[in-house]
Amino acid sequence: MSNKIFHSIAILGVGLIGGSLGLAVKAAGSVAEVRGWGRNSARLQRALDLGAVDTVTSDLAEVLHGVDCAIIATPTQHAEQLLLETLNAASDTTIISDVASVKANLADALQLAACAEAKKAQVVLAHPIAGSEQSGVEAASATLFNDQRVILTPLANTRPGAVDKVSALWRSVGAQLHSMDAELHDRVLGHTSHLPHVLAYALVDYLNRQPESELMFTFAGGGFRDFTRIAASDPRMWREISLANREALLDALRGYQGQLQLMVDALENSDGDTLEASFGRAKTARDAFKPGE
Amino acid sequence: MSNKIFHSIAILGVGLIGGSLGLAVKAAGSVAEVRGWGRNSARLQRALDLGAVDTVTSDLAEVLHGVDCAIIATPTQHAEQLLLETLNAASDTTIISDVASVKANLADALQLAACAEAKKAQVVLAHPIAGSEQSGVEAASATLFNDQRVILTPLANTRPGAVDKVSALWRSVGAQLHSMDAELHDRVLGHTSHLPHVLAYALVDYLNRQPESELMFTFAGGGFRDFTRIAASDPRMWREISLANREALLDALRGYQGQLQLMVDALENSDGDTLEASFGRAKTARDAFKPGE
Repeated sequence: MSNKIFHSIAILGVGLIGGSLGLAVKAAGSVAEVRGWGRNSARLQRALDLGAVDTVTSDLAEVLHGVDCAIIATPTQHAEQLLLETLNAASDTTIISDVASVKANLADALQLAACAEAKKAQVVLAHPIAGSEQSGVEAASATLFNDQRVILTPLANTRPGAVDKVSALWRSVGAQLHSMDAELHDRVLGHTSHLPHVLAYALVDYLNRQPESELMFTFAGGGFRDFTRIAASDPRMWREISLANREALLDALRGYQGQLQLMVDALENSDGDTLEASFGRAKTARDAFKPGE
Repeated sequence: MSNKIFHSIAILGVGLIGGSLGLAVKAAGSVAEVRGWGRNSARLQRALDLGAVDTVTSDLAEVLHGVDCAIIATPTQHAEQLLLETLNAASDTTIISDVASVKANLADALQLAACAEAKKAQVVLAHPIAGSEQSGVEAASATLFNDQRVILTPLANTRPGAVDKVSALWRSVGAQLHSMDAELHDRVLGHTSHLPHVLAYALVDYLNRQPESELMFTFAGGGFRDFTRIAASDPRMWREISLANREALLDALRGYQGQLQLMVDALENSDGDTLEASFGRAKTARDAFKPGE
């Protein structure tokens, strides 16, 4: 009996996440054949050279032909369109999944898609919470998902067998599987990932506009370094994530603005007790936060 | 000829910074005798046990008697009062310095102090930009200041010979010396250190108040971990730094609020170009930031 989860998978978009998945399933031996698809032939060649995929093509019908599972791993702005194209081009038995950071927009697109319900039931929307401020297949790693969380956001009519197979694929590369509603996913990630990215970008852009910006960057220390590491992330990707999760991110930003105003008010009133109480609650919560440390 | 910078120094307050300075000058051999002073005898004993100081006492007159240099390394809220007490108790030839994160309040207190100008000229206000979210002498390290920056904020009448000696002391433990006006120091650090701390505390306290806070902390990833690391810092210390640098920090906070509102406006208008332009400027500036990496 084979220990393969799938005989063949197609990774649609072989960047940091897609490339890492290819490397990881090949290292784990959980897939016999890993096909790579993309629009840029130079990038596909690099993915092939790095061993992230076994074959490459820019022809979507070709890569999907007879494949057991297709994983959409393109940037956020292309995920929705590619999901619809993949639904059209894939066979009824192909399981379709993705890795996008925002899920409700894809869930909505899927529900509105003009295709058979049986085909929609094969789609398992997924978000591996892994990545880095780097991008591209050159930064890919076979261990990127090890001990990291993957959130599945199945719809009511998603086929349980498809969920099980996608779960098994991610488990084979060391990930921990979780499941939640797409709207809740977007609210949670909007607060813990998308909001901090916007806050870090805003800080660095703000300091950059100060007349003493050169001095400021010169004398910024380790706290600033850690706080702003995510501001080195890909601006185009974060534009698209921000727009894709616009409502939940706006909700998070407005809530944060309220919290910040409380701090400004306390400082204006020299109200050290309010400052210290907030700082203390934050420290207690942060000290209790351990995942991924 | 001796390579000692000072025969004897007194470290007033032997926590993370004071303890690290003691370990570092002893490792460097730049001071023959390191005396420790503090109010808590158990903490003093730990500093002695860890080898951060050679002798300990809770008597300020005793620790200052015949000492070449006194370094005030207590928490921010005690620095001003202890500076005045040290000015009173130290001899005219003792050089006095400190390690506090805020400088203009101490510069003001020094200028208003009721003592001879010659004595004030012996005071060299200093800020080693080093530390961690940990505190206490148990976290002290002989290499904490290695390749880190120390900013001196001498006043117009500070004695150049005293500046040279304090500079030499910090250089002996591997630090890079800089000098600037106390107000500029507070503005620079208010933006690059104090502001990020308040922002990180505010994020964690805000998330902690959400109904889904447990889910949020469970699914927060590496970006959140780095962004919020400084929210594990000592709340009491950051209350006091915030209050001591109140005006400059308020200025930084208000400027940041303006920047954040630009992001909210852009998101409300689905204005991806404005978002991406800001993210892109931030990435360029962050990529160019290298100190301490």
